[in-house]
Amino acid sequence: MIRVVVTGASGFVGSHCLSPLLDAGVDVVSLGRTAPDIDRVAHIECDLLDDETRSTLIPSIGASHLLHLAWNLEPGVYNESGSNLDWLAASLRLVREFGLAGGRRVIVTGSCFEYEWGPSVLSEDSPIAPNTLYGLAKGLLHQALDGYSHRDGPDLAWPRLFFLYGPGENTRRLAGAVTSSLLRGESVDTSEGVQRRDYMYIEDAGRALAALTLSDVTGPVNIARGTAIPVRALIGALADAIGKPDLVAYGARETPAGEAPVVEADIHRLLSEVGFDQFTELESGAASTVAWWRARLGVS
Amino acid sequence: MIRVVVTGASGFVGSHCLSPLLDAGVDVVSLGRTAPDIDRVAHIECDLLDDETRSTLIPSIGASHLLHLAWNLEPGVYNESGSNLDWLAASLRLVREFGLAGGRRVIVTGSCFEYEWGPSVLSEDSPIAPNTLYGLAKGLLHQALDGYSHRDGPDLAWPRLFFLYGPGENTRRLAGAVTSSLLRGESVDTSEGVQRRDYMYIEDAGRALAALTLSDVTGPVNIARGTAIPVRALIGALADAIGKPDLVAYGARETPAGEAPVVEADIHRLLSEVGFDQFTELESGAASTVAWWRARLGVS
Repeated sequence: MIRVVVTGASGFVGSHCLSPLLDAGVDVVSLGRTAPDIDRVAHIECDLLDDETRSTLIPSIGASHLLHLAWNLEPGVYNESGSNLDWLAASLRLVREFGLAGGRRVIVTGSCFEYEWGPSVLSEDSPIAPNTLYGLAKGLLHQALDGYSHRDGPDLAWPRLFFLYGPGENTRRLAGAVTSSLLRGESVDTSEGVQRRDYMYIEDAGRALAALTLSDVTGPVNIARGTAIPVRALIGALADAIGKPDLVAYGARETPAGEAPVVEADIHRLLSEVGFDQFTELESGAASTVAWWRARLGVS
Repeated sequence: MIRVVVTGASGFVGSHCLSPLLDAGVDVVSLGRTAPDIDRVAHIECDLLDDETRSTLIPSIGASHLLHLAWNLEPGVYNESGSNLDWLAASLRLVREFGLAGGRRVIVTGSCFEYEWGPSVLSEDSPIAPNTLYGLAKGLLHQALDGYSHRDGPDLAWPRLFFLYGPGENTRRLAGAVTSSLLRGESVDTSEGVQRRDYMYIEDAGRALAALTLSDVTGPVNIARGTAIPVRALIGALADAIGKPDLVAYGARETPAGEAPVVEADIHRLLSEVGFDQFTELESGAASTVAWWRARLGVS
């Protein structure tokens, strides 16, 4: 019997992992402050930053797998927040409690922000040199859990998420901001948007994480589309799906200094080891994103 | 007013830091399970692995400096124990609580076990490539706290301790084992002991740590003698001080496979930046160590 305890299950990424896990026939338990909006998932309300709660709850759940997605990801704040240290500490303790309780497999989300961004495609063994406290904390957590896993800890898979868009996104993140503004008829000022980013549709990411969770693959695994597109192509696809391409003013904002020209993932491990290769095309993903926002905002 | 809160104050290293700190005229508060055996230090009993205790206590102490020495250092166990992750997590939270409470300077002990041991003298910027979970956890803690310090965290000094001997040592560590055995008239089987290690007398280490604590020096600082001696020289000095050199059987044990031939520190930063240069010679340190053990064991 596989029982997966999921943290961050109500979040942008987590909410898209639950159905694929349930569809695979496994038992899913959610742990955290907010219950996910889905049936068939037992939710246990707790503060993951609280030691005592964790040490009491984890053994009682009896899960075989831990999919740990929770972190402080408040847009505009999380990159340099000292709370990254708190989540690093809480994540260490969570995995320790899980290991001591006999859990056998841990999947914790890392990030493309762990890597040194340069002109090369980023593979799992590319240099780690984060520019942000968030990327640093995630990279350190990976090393600590990897060290634990190679002693007497549970198996560890470390999915590194790249850039995501789709239903449920925060309006302070790019695609959420653009879509909700355009649907309200507001104009959107952006940079030229020629920098290229490896964008993945969020439902694909959820399915990929579920597949990785239920596989035997260990170590870091890039979760991405494997093709970087200009940011303006993502914005354009959303604007086209809405029918308001004229409301986007490319170049109205300066491109931030030091912005990397390209961030692209090598997804060889995802394709060949996890066996995940079903990707949603940009036009289709944009249409689904817009449809979700139309329903959410009540606009036609 | 400088108030230093010390964790691990009752330990081998901590107990030798207190007098130098008090002699410098600063206020010292001890925090942890065991009270140090010294007057003029207020002790607050608590479990440092418990989040709630820390978050309540730290703001109430109002310390300007944190000297964090506590860790699981049980001989024979600590190198690969999963508890290294617990101490990593607890240390992160401790420093965060201290930073949020307005603490301005943090000193946390690192280790020569963070470094890749090779033929070269180890300076503070030598490659970090630990072989043990202990060394890994310490190295990761350093990186996390350094990242925090460069954002809005307190200043950070990271003393890396090398090899220590002297009064108060555990009998399961080399010098403690040798001295206590020889004083009981028991023979001691050792390896040839030709591997060279940078041994420092513990009272020197305590004074060096106190000096670093009260300095403005930040970043990693090797705390060592700067001269590696054959391990047999340390054993010989202790045996000579006891007057039982014949009880030591060098070569009776195999040298463990993979034992590094030499581990020696570059102590330029300690000498020139901290300004610490008072070292106890081996014969004198051995004599003091033996005198302490004679009193402790009640042998003449």
